[in-house]
Amino acid sequence: MTGNEALSADLYQLTMLQGYHQQRMDDIAVFELFIRKLPACRGFLVAAGLEQAVDYLRNLRFTPADLDWLSGTGFFKAEFLQWLRHFRFTGDVHAMPEGTVFFPDEPILRVTAPISEAQFVESRLINIVHFQTLIASKAARSVLTAPGKTLVEFGFRRAHGGEAGIFAARAAYLAGFSGTATLGAGRRFGIPVFGTMAHSFVQAHPSESEAFEHFARANPDNTVLLIDTYDTEGGAQKAVELASRLKSSNIPIKGVRLDSGDLADHAHKVRRILDAGGLTGATIFASGNIDEYTLARLQSAEAPIDGYGIGTRLDTSEDAPYLDCAYKLQAYAGIPRRKRSEGKATWPGVKQVYRRFDADGLLAGDTITLAEIPCAGRPLLKEVMRSGARVEPLPSLVQIREYAKDQLSRLPAGLRTLSDAAAYPVQVAAELRALTERMDKETLPR
Amino acid sequence: MTGNEALSADLYQLTMLQGYHQQRMDDIAVFELFIRKLPACRGFLVAAGLEQAVDYLRNLRFTPADLDWLSGTGFFKAEFLQWLRHFRFTGDVHAMPEGTVFFPDEPILRVTAPISEAQFVESRLINIVHFQTLIASKAARSVLTAPGKTLVEFGFRRAHGGEAGIFAARAAYLAGFSGTATLGAGRRFGIPVFGTMAHSFVQAHPSESEAFEHFARANPDNTVLLIDTYDTEGGAQKAVELASRLKSSNIPIKGVRLDSGDLADHAHKVRRILDAGGLTGATIFASGNIDEYTLARLQSAEAPIDGYGIGTRLDTSEDAPYLDCAYKLQAYAGIPRRKRSEGKATWPGVKQVYRRFDADGLLAGDTITLAEIPCAGRPLLKEVMRSGARVEPLPSLVQIREYAKDQLSRLPAGLRTLSDAAAYPVQVAAELRALTERMDKETLPR
Repeated sequence: MTGNEALSADLYQLTMLQGYHQQRMDDIAVFELFIRKLPACRGFLVAAGLEQAVDYLRNLRFTPADLDWLSGTGFFKAEFLQWLRHFRFTGDVHAMPEGTVFFPDEPILRVTAPISEAQFVESRLINIVHFQTLIASKAARSVLTAPGKTLVEFGFRRAHGGEAGIFAARAAYLAGFSGTATLGAGRRFGIPVFGTMAHSFVQAHPSESEAFEHFARANPDNTVLLIDTYDTEGGAQKAVELASRLKSSNIPIKGVRLDSGDLADHAHKVRRILDAGGLTGATIFASGNIDEYTLARLQSAEAPIDGYGIGTRLDTSEDAPYLDCAYKLQAYAGIPRRKRSEGKATWPGVKQVYRRFDADGLLAGDTITLAEIPCAGRPLLKEVMRSGARVEPLPSLVQIREYAKDQLSRLPAGLRTLSDAAAYPVQVAAELRALTERMDKETLPR
Repeated sequence: MTGNEALSADLYQLTMLQGYHQQRMDDIAVFELFIRKLPACRGFLVAAGLEQAVDYLRNLRFTPADLDWLSGTGFFKAEFLQWLRHFRFTGDVHAMPEGTVFFPDEPILRVTAPISEAQFVESRLINIVHFQTLIASKAARSVLTAPGKTLVEFGFRRAHGGEAGIFAARAAYLAGFSGTATLGAGRRFGIPVFGTMAHSFVQAHPSESEAFEHFARANPDNTVLLIDTYDTEGGAQKAVELASRLKSSNIPIKGVRLDSGDLADHAHKVRRILDAGGLTGATIFASGNIDEYTLARLQSAEAPIDGYGIGTRLDTSEDAPYLDCAYKLQAYAGIPRRKRSEGKATWPGVKQVYRRFDADGLLAGDTITLAEIPCAGRPLLKEVMRSGARVEPLPSLVQIREYAKDQLSRLPAGLRTLSDAAAYPVQVAAELRALTERMDKETLPR
């Protein structure tokens, strides 16, 4: 996405690779990607971004221009750069399917590859998976809060750069949104696009009525009118008046949009105006600093709003703008490894996550265990790449969305709340605890 | 950056353009980009992103593939799509130079162009300028808090997508950081790159000492050792031991990095170990969830730390993940326009910002006024594009950085604090207030 994907990496990846290369260290390493802990305002997370992560790994290579630039930095020896010319990702990847609900400490993606490859991909892998997971997890909260409403991702302009806007649209759609306002996301991912008009369109016309009519005649199949530029209820009245003028042209008013003020209050008044004017089929769409908390208030006010544009606060994950996401070495040359840095210690070894369900099919508990020691439940990490290639086509975005819907339907009530979510039981298997203790004893005196 | 820049736009831009096109509305519009209000934890903002904004405008065009896709959406008439084939940005742009300190309601960028062009570019212009401004404004706070320290942008992995990582590096450098860890930002913008090793490098070796030695021999000019994988002070001791082993090879230990625990406490202890071991020239670099607030605490603890890696909290602007940024129609066909939506009303007309300085050269006050009515002080918006082309080459990133440094040096003491910043006096000129009142009277009964 940045035009030079191989350089979407930290310098230290390459200084380390230069070290591995010089020592001919090329045994198999296992790295796992996981979230250390939940933000205070999250009860669960939704895995996303795997498709772009796999694309990145499949296409990874240094272009001659990349290598020229690296050479000019002075950090690297010619022989090492020569070796980088043929650098490819040839490893295996196991991952939770996109849309899977998961919890802290659970690996959601595992890379098994010669150490240079597994190490090098760290920065961009996290960059891709962290952000989409962040947004899918946030979007799922709106989906749970306003079931049956049309939710549209509206945040491109205040997303953090172009890729964030496009990825946020994908992650939100995956989590159950109906679509996006962003053309580029529609084109790249086939997500339905929604959109109508801005205030400037109204302001550029001598009157609101003329603006509405011009818009309707130019967009006869998509006439949703933004009615709050001057006065919301006045705008609704003009929409009603326009409807009768348009009858002979057979152009329906599909709906109106509110973008400011007390949305519940305006929606009630506007609904009455539309209904009294015979526009019972016209929908009310609302936008303007909306997030799951606003949605909850509007839902309890029984605001007659049919759909929402959810932008900035979703695309920036305003209440939790990052996850404590890490990608750590868990084994090298067949030997488990453990980082012990204060507050950042990891569970060592190659791991798998098993999930149990209750009689109603709801999530009942997970166990993190060593991959070689199966336990009760359904394993969540599946093989997605082998020797640098996909083992089978990844699911389509629509399939992922269906799967995510099923996942969200299996959340127990305690995890569906917007705050004070119940703690979900994630056990660490006895074997994994034993390994950890053994490793600490063996390495402590080092 | 997303491969199809013209589609880095909201659908509604094109449905509106279809309306303008059908009505042959093509008079000149003036849009201004500004921030409605400061986040609670900001006293000032730093303008950034203009170079990428100008590049976007200069290169804007729909590819045949874009138009094919748009045609397939069903929203657009063939004749309109035909017209889009030749769509270019032919307008003028005035803007505050990158690095300029500014305040709410002050336009930082003004577009003057046929309405379709000025309207269409809204989404991507905001997307570019908002994010870099967000990050430059945050980065400036660290620069002011830790003068003389080496600050390195470290946040690519948790930035919101690839472009955010690259843009954050640029914005931080512009605001006074020394460089970035991200190779792609180094390549694209010529920013100095910094980096050493991760914990995984240490963990992959049988012992920390071997890891350090391998790294040093592979990177003899860039030997900075990460010493907290197992035990920070133990790591420092191993760095000292390595230094004597490396003496015969003439490889110096440039420094060590701390990444966990109580950084001030560790830094004091590590400094003593290094000094006692004769490594008085080795620097201490610290990282791990650092932001300007952490920096302030470490500075007051007089932690002997020479440089900082500042990542996630900077790249996500964690304490204020977005600015209330808008791009609004202020005039059309020579007539001022005003949006009056509740809580979102704008100052109408084509505006300029004038700044006054006190006897010491510090910022003393700004006035927002109509561009046609000059007032005392220095005008901040300069012409950067005319008829779709740059009027002169934009300053280099190094020049921008120098200018930003000068700007920050002119901040009065009340604006330099991390919290409870003094309110900076921004006046709205009497003529502008009078215009606003006149417009409200004229349009209210509409």
